[in-house]
Amino acid sequence: MINIIEFINKKSLTLASINAIKESDIIISYNYDFEKVKDLVNQQSEVFFIENIEEDLNINACELALSKSFEGKNVSLISNEYLKFGFNSLIYQIASKYSEKVDIKIYPTVSAINYTSSIVGSPLDDVAIINFANPLIPFSELELKIKNALKSNYILAIHNPLYNEELFNRFKEISLEILAEDTLIASVNIEDNSKEIIKLVDLDTTLKSSFLIVGNKFTYQEDNLMITPRSYMIKNDIISYTREFFEKYLNNESPCGLDYDCDYLPCHKELEACDYCYCPFYPCGESSTGGKWIKDKNVWDCQECIWIHTESADKCIREKFDKIFTEVEDLNLKKEELLRIRRECLFKTK
Amino acid sequence: MINIIEFINKKSLTLASINAIKESDIIISYNYDFEKVKDLVNQQSEVFFIENIEEDLNINACELALSKSFEGKNVSLISNEYLKFGFNSLIYQIASKYSEKVDIKIYPTVSAINYTSSIVGSPLDDVAIINFANPLIPFSELELKIKNALKSNYILAIHNPLYNEELFNRFKEISLEILAEDTLIASVNIEDNSKEIIKLVDLDTTLKSSFLIVGNKFTYQEDNLMITPRSYMIKNDIISYTREFFEKYLNNESPCGLDYDCDYLPCHKELEACDYCYCPFYPCGESSTGGKWIKDKNVWDCQECIWIHTESADKCIREKFDKIFTEVEDLNLKKEELLRIRRECLFKTK
Repeated sequence: MINIIEFINKKSLTLASINAIKESDIIISYNYDFEKVKDLVNQQSEVFFIENIEEDLNINACELALSKSFEGKNVSLISNEYLKFGFNSLIYQIASKYSEKVDIKIYPTVSAINYTSSIVGSPLDDVAIINFANPLIPFSELELKIKNALKSNYILAIHNPLYNEELFNRFKEISLEILAEDTLIASVNIEDNSKEIIKLVDLDTTLKSSFLIVGNKFTYQEDNLMITPRSYMIKNDIISYTREFFEKYLNNESPCGLDYDCDYLPCHKELEACDYCYCPFYPCGESSTGGKWIKDKNVWDCQECIWIHTESADKCIREKFDKIFTEVEDLNLKKEELLRIRRECLFKTK
Repeated sequence: MINIIEFINKKSLTLASINAIKESDIIISYNYDFEKVKDLVNQQSEVFFIENIEEDLNINACELALSKSFEGKNVSLISNEYLKFGFNSLIYQIASKYSEKVDIKIYPTVSAINYTSSIVGSPLDDVAIINFANPLIPFSELELKIKNALKSNYILAIHNPLYNEELFNRFKEISLEILAEDTLIASVNIEDNSKEIIKLVDLDTTLKSSFLIVGNKFTYQEDNLMITPRSYMIKNDIISYTREFFEKYLNNESPCGLDYDCDYLPCHKELEACDYCYCPFYPCGESSTGGKWIKDKNVWDCQECIWIHTESADKCIREKFDKIFTEVEDLNLKKEELLRIRRECLFKTK
């Protein structure tokens, strides 16, 4: 029987993995990984270091695991999830050389993406994960993967970003073509749990990084954390000013474009349109546009959010909002649809 | 202090998570999840079921966690990774309402993607993961994510595929526009660890599925397992027939297109081109094109692989192969480049 123990570090092993290691007759591992689990290993177990195996290391490590398993041994192969290759696929490919059946069991671990995210804050939403350390994948495929993920608002996570400098530079180039320069990127070194949160434009090869997480259009930084809000709905009373404004809106009596007659102009810097003087999404409770809570008051403050007042956002929202908005109460009753419109327009225009 | 315990099932908890649960004064959890961890919970701990919290369940669960934490309690919030929402982002968003600092620690778990993959075989390579159960994300964004992932050879994984039937149907439609009908899909029900491996064309809403994994161009099925090979390099002696053939190839004496004069024609069904009568990638050791090992003989059998003999593959390979192939020994010396060419052309033409 062969146990494939997925591994990033000792802390991330499950009880099932720990037991499998303890009960193994034979451990096959890179020395590098073995050092981290050796106190879990039974003294009677025989240990083979992959570095000592003749060339074609990974293939021969699988061959060794299979031959020991055919002898009736219980073998554990430590399969590092974030390095160049794990063994998961390879063991099945090599096993299919033989007619004798072997019982292969994969012990999943905390994946690098969950592990690094927990260090970084809460950066995840829908996510695309690429490994740069597979030299058998052509650049053309990896570049397409990068491009398509970034164009569709995925969080993009990259194992071993610095494995190949040329590829790393292409990645930065492509990213700058698609994303804003100040897009947030978290760089984590899984070895020592260190992290840095930087801007895309500052990305360079001096990073000590084993894993990168590129934020999406909604990702923001708070203190030393990177957070991607997954949206939630806050319903609240509609205050009288808002009610008044949206009654006028429904009667086509509210401003269109910049309202030069307004006493409060300029209320924000760089304001382009007053169509949504009161925000139809208020309170969004989501900081990617600059809004924030006034601490301890349960009041959402939009002073720093200019997005709703930009022409592109205004245009996008009008098109969709006017189709569903028929009475002021809709601001609460149709909050779910409204938040979808907000997200769609943010994605298109931010 | 608030511990966010990422959770899919008890088996997948790490030691760190188990200890955090044990040491909590307060546990906040859906009853559904609590049932699975209750024997880990200290008898003195106070337990709050989220179902019993007044509306805006998740928001109020976070508010409760925060208020208890402000009282000095050690709180654990069980955050189901694969259901509608985990708490990871929300807790940070709600915490930012208050000036008092709270220590939030996220305990990562085996992610649903690693867990389900371990049940299915070894389906992973670069992967895009989408959650269908967030009603606040517009379909337009999800459709773009599906389309772009499938166009760039990602494995596509979907949490809660059947959360919304309309979205599920759109997903199938889009997939059929981009992928072959017989693309492999694994459907896993995390609750009972059951799995099915089906073809894209057979996907329907009767599936009992909490997680789907859509294979890429290279994914194949063996027995009841779904495997995506991540490529590996097998170097071997160049046999005399191969040597002879490629010497002719270098002298432009080998066939171009179908060789009607060949005594062995038709050697394969549906053969379109004989340019690579001997395969420059032999042995690829990778079953996605129909090749397989002859059991116990260490011989790779290409009888069932027609891909190299199709016109589109032939054309793609010629273009790239002729640029790097200068002597017969290159079949081994440039194996890495050759396998990249193989992958690139497979992706383009399969």
